[in-house]
Amino acid sequence: MGYKIAILGATGAVGRQMIEVLREKDIQISELALLSSKRSVGTEFEFKNEKIYVSNAEDEDFSKYDFVLGAVNSDISKKYAPYIRRSGAIFIDNSSAFRMSDDVPLVIPSVNPKDVEDHRGIISNPNCSTIIALTAVNAINALSPIRSMIVSTYQAVSGAGKSGIDELQSQQKQILCDEKIKPSVFPYPIAENLIPCIGTLNDDGYTTEEMKMQNEAQKIFHSHDINITCTCVRVPIIRSHSMSISVFTQNKISPLSAKSAISMQKNCVLCGDALYPMPILSSNKDDVFVGRIREDLSMSNGIALFCCGDQIRRGAATNAVEIMELLM
Amino acid sequence: MGYKIAILGATGAVGRQMIEVLREKDIQISELALLSSKRSVGTEFEFKNEKIYVSNAEDEDFSKYDFVLGAVNSDISKKYAPYIRRSGAIFIDNSSAFRMSDDVPLVIPSVNPKDVEDHRGIISNPNCSTIIALTAVNAINALSPIRSMIVSTYQAVSGAGKSGIDELQSQQKQILCDEKIKPSVFPYPIAENLIPCIGTLNDDGYTTEEMKMQNEAQKIFHSHDINITCTCVRVPIIRSHSMSISVFTQNKISPLSAKSAISMQKNCVLCGDALYPMPILSSNKDDVFVGRIREDLSMSNGIALFCCGDQIRRGAATNAVEIMELLM
Repeated sequence: MGYKIAILGATGAVGRQMIEVLREKDIQISELALLSSKRSVGTEFEFKNEKIYVSNAEDEDFSKYDFVLGAVNSDISKKYAPYIRRSGAIFIDNSSAFRMSDDVPLVIPSVNPKDVEDHRGIISNPNCSTIIALTAVNAINALSPIRSMIVSTYQAVSGAGKSGIDELQSQQKQILCDEKIKPSVFPYPIAENLIPCIGTLNDDGYTTEEMKMQNEAQKIFHSHDINITCTCVRVPIIRSHSMSISVFTQNKISPLSAKSAISMQKNCVLCGDALYPMPILSSNKDDVFVGRIREDLSMSNGIALFCCGDQIRRGAATNAVEIMELLM
Repeated sequence: MGYKIAILGATGAVGRQMIEVLREKDIQISELALLSSKRSVGTEFEFKNEKIYVSNAEDEDFSKYDFVLGAVNSDISKKYAPYIRRSGAIFIDNSSAFRMSDDVPLVIPSVNPKDVEDHRGIISNPNCSTIIALTAVNAINALSPIRSMIVSTYQAVSGAGKSGIDELQSQQKQILCDEKIKPSVFPYPIAENLIPCIGTLNDDGYTTEEMKMQNEAQKIFHSHDINITCTCVRVPIIRSHSMSISVFTQNKISPLSAKSAISMQKNCVLCGDALYPMPILSSNKDDVFVGRIREDLSMSNGIALFCCGDQIRRGAATNAVEIMELLM
């Protein structure tokens, strides 16, 4: 009695978080398989008083499972997706591989839950920054359709996985010990620095990471009229992404009505004047913290705000598990 | 033979940097006085092979000096300004005390040098973020007048002076040693965190720091038509401020012509695609680094860019010394 679930890429930062989220949730699970590449086979995890050993994804028969949660990169996702689809299991994929495919729903459960219904075996988890930003502005979009957005991100090193976190922490030690910093995960030092470029640069000057915000927002909000300028910046913070957002709507919305709507938005916490959305607040939580809500002074019909969300939980693992819950 | 110069507040982060900038410059100085509050009297500095001891500002007769460089806070500036003005010395003030006064020029030497001519004894140095942002966008404003700007800052702890730098560094050690962090300079921990609020909050939701950008830009660019939304965020970085800026002009400007104009702007360094403006590049330098220049996708006639500048040098000490040089 219960669901049979596999996590593909169980030993990375997002995979481990998926195990943690499943541990906390009240989902009936009769089997949990932890799959990875050969390298991590045999790693032991504790799950609800049982020991689970990581097994090789290559040897897996996916037809055993109801759901496969994908926490691997795009290339590995593309490799396994056909097998999973054919097996009859539903693949909830955290990678960018299928996000823009017409027959793959792209879902934030608190924003566009009904979209899951149209799946054909694969459902994509949006990019972490997209999830956090759209959770924050969804209530505004419901008051009046969003026409344009300007987003500047403050992205944590966890966006580059466990190795990104390790690199920041070891560089911080190196600075204290006056040792030379040799970057390997990021192209430049990240401790006491920021890097205003995430992903690869396109010819138009935008990065692949920046264009995800616009492309994914258009799909999730079902509107091709939303134009977004995004600037993605890596900052020396462990696991919460923050964003400064100016959002412009078709009709004028007062800061007061924006605040009131955001306070009722699922998965959002409205911060008052004495407390601001900050990584120390949102880290290890599932909510997106939204604050500094005020009229945008630069142009008409604008609201400026600041938001923060845990990139690994809200921006990845929790969103994927919530998609699965929608289907249960 | 040479100028007689006093630095008011010589022992703080900006005062010390002014001494350093004067050391590097080829200015004929016959006397340099280092003034401070009672507490720091007697502190010894080396200046061009001479020893200078800090003396008490309270006892000073300012009529001896051609220039007084102010590196104190607003309240202390207001206290000393009448004495300095009456003495006949020219007061170049880094505080916000007189920036918006009608009879006080507010000057960035590479942007509005001619404004110094109208002084009546006091010239103000703009806010550090204003200096860095307007140095970056000045060339764009010359191509077509700026109508609006959206600025999100990534401000270093040096903006809160030497104690801000000390607080970040001691918190970083505390995290490594698993000790409890007790913030004192900033309202919340700043190591591995960010604080999206600098200055005091006004009723409209903007902070005093954020409104400086709009008010000072209107004065420096001689235009009341510029509307700016600024979001000021403190990040765990030592001494360079960074900014993500979308600038909207009266007429459309191509990214190529913006790049070409910025490359010729004094005190600007244009970063190509392989290198981005980053604190590790701009710290301890006088130039503002500008890059990621591209068409803004959110609305028409927009250019998006990212810039970085040393807050203590370009944003304060160097700008003040350059104002003095304009008058020499």
